[in-house]
Amino acid sequence: MTPREAGFAMPAEWAPHAGCWMIWPERPDNWRLGAKPAQKAFTEVASAIARFEPVTMLVSRRQYDHARAMLPPGVRVVEMSSDDAWARDVACTFLLGPGGELAGVDWPFTSWGGLYFPWDKDDAIARKILELERARRFRAPLVMEGGALHVDGEGTVLAVEQCVLNENRNRGVTRQEMERMLKDYTGSRHVIWLKEGVPHDETDGHVDNLACFAAPGVVLLSWCDDPADPHYAVSRDAEAALQAARDARGRRLRVEKIPMPAPMFYTAEEADGVDATATGMNREAGARLAASYVNFYIANGAIIAPAFGAETDAPARAVLARLFPGREIVMIPAREILLGGGNIHCITQQQPKSTAPGGP
Amino acid sequence: MTPREAGFAMPAEWAPHAGCWMIWPERPDNWRLGAKPAQKAFTEVASAIARFEPVTMLVSRRQYDHARAMLPPGVRVVEMSSDDAWARDVACTFLLGPGGELAGVDWPFTSWGGLYFPWDKDDAIARKILELERARRFRAPLVMEGGALHVDGEGTVLAVEQCVLNENRNRGVTRQEMERMLKDYTGSRHVIWLKEGVPHDETDGHVDNLACFAAPGVVLLSWCDDPADPHYAVSRDAEAALQAARDARGRRLRVEKIPMPAPMFYTAEEADGVDATATGMNREAGARLAASYVNFYIANGAIIAPAFGAETDAPARAVLARLFPGREIVMIPAREILLGGGNIHCITQQQPKSTAPGGP
Repeated sequence: MTPREAGFAMPAEWAPHAGCWMIWPERPDNWRLGAKPAQKAFTEVASAIARFEPVTMLVSRRQYDHARAMLPPGVRVVEMSSDDAWARDVACTFLLGPGGELAGVDWPFTSWGGLYFPWDKDDAIARKILELERARRFRAPLVMEGGALHVDGEGTVLAVEQCVLNENRNRGVTRQEMERMLKDYTGSRHVIWLKEGVPHDETDGHVDNLACFAAPGVVLLSWCDDPADPHYAVSRDAEAALQAARDARGRRLRVEKIPMPAPMFYTAEEADGVDATATGMNREAGARLAASYVNFYIANGAIIAPAFGAETDAPARAVLARLFPGREIVMIPAREILLGGGNIHCITQQQPKSTAPGGP
Repeated sequence: MTPREAGFAMPAEWAPHAGCWMIWPERPDNWRLGAKPAQKAFTEVASAIARFEPVTMLVSRRQYDHARAMLPPGVRVVEMSSDDAWARDVACTFLLGPGGELAGVDWPFTSWGGLYFPWDKDDAIARKILELERARRFRAPLVMEGGALHVDGEGTVLAVEQCVLNENRNRGVTRQEMERMLKDYTGSRHVIWLKEGVPHDETDGHVDNLACFAAPGVVLLSWCDDPADPHYAVSRDAEAALQAARDARGRRLRVEKIPMPAPMFYTAEEADGVDATATGMNREAGARLAASYVNFYIANGAIIAPAFGAETDAPARAVLARLFPGREIVMIPAREILLGGGNIHCITQQQPKSTAPGGP
């Protein structure tokens, strides 16, 4: 039985949370200098979120003592093995059922088309979290990542073709089959497709780096005004698609824009701090970073958003403050997270508050 | 601040439980045949307890999938690294506070006087469980094991000198210092000392293999009537000590007896199935096993007790049924657990039901 058949659906990220799950960064072939700078950035993010809702940090045995020492006492530290630190993609996508009970989707995970090896421990995380929560688990039939979808909580999914329909995820699966799966496993009725994601995004364009729902009927889009930048065309294509779309309730969408920061690149020092790999997935000096303000986390009463030390930080904050008037806007220097290939939304996973009697 | 100063105390094992913690056996230098027979026995114990209260099985990353496949769906499987499988000794000793809130003692653990190497992962388990439960942690100042004490829940501790005062645990610590620590960390007022534990017990005589409280003022003692058996003198000594004792409320104790099974020994086949170790802690054919019916677990509404396929199984069951009239007596073949050096009480740890609002 699919979640939809069982009456389960994924709430919007702005619905009340029971808490947030994160994973401690560690692997030295993705995070420079033995992940020490990234660990500081993750600690800042966890500390910020913990002001608003309970945070659980999943940590390997090796790093348990160190993570416990670095994180504030209010952040719960739980031993769990992983291959990397992207809770958005490898933790479950939580659902609520007809009685408000918690469940979750366990998406088969293959490391963004086989980008980093191995991925077996990451693929096991969703199941382990659902065990911890004693919550029902729906293992999906197709490969998917949590960062490759957004929902409005009212029946609409937002996704990017370049990523979700990529042959490196589910070879030979049609758009119709994938739409069916997305709807069945998020409890939705309608999928809005965008064509391409943010250029240089190694996930092949996760939607959570390009655009997100800010409210039902409102989409926030990472926007570029420089015709020389490859994101110029991408953001215009996305705008056109969103303006042509209707959501599950038949509404037109209001498109809000948030500026991209000016181009950012790996420095030689940053690239030099990352271990080489046998698979050739290496960091190179001068490579462009896929920076985007859209990659933020909605916490209970707050927005936890990346800052890049760029001129666009203040205008981006103003957009967020306007779109989320009831929430405190907390911006956190996120370059060290970005260097690993994602941002604050990618390293977090909300658990909605169950409304079932005695639920978590 | 000690638990006693903070108003915390360890409830008796018969007080209502929130659940039970266990650890999946794995190490091939303690459990024969790659721990496969022990895993079956642990599965039987977990399945039996799960009929009466929630069970969490802590499992290493390597064994996670296998444990999940073997255990019934109702048993929660949680990843946690360990050095062996003795939840009684390495999980926290749970306490309840003045408002009924949960806390726990994290006893420093050194592998029963350094018997098995290493023990760092086992020593970390109590802390990790208390993190999982978001419960307050009291790290004790002296080495101790949960199986080396029993409480009546009314201020009395029962312990064995041979073990608790052994120089291989806390060198140079006096009986008075240890009594102070036991009282401070279990929230008790009085310690009753027995001199020696069951012979051949590799823990140097954990009390939980020799005697336990069956109710306030009632102690159940593992009894031997064969003068040729070394336990003959031990059980008579213990009886005398118990008859001379008063509990924390000044009561005399009623001593109840449960028969020991006839002597049991490692077979050559059993000893041969265990990996050799560098430390010399090896199993030898013909070595005596420290079998005792007292090593049972009190679950909500049940007694989960070892069976040895011996003539004494039925009389032991009758004693348990008489002493615990409101509880179902479930006896489980336990030889494979015994071969690893303990029994059902040693591999379980109860978590009392918090009576605090919203508590677990």
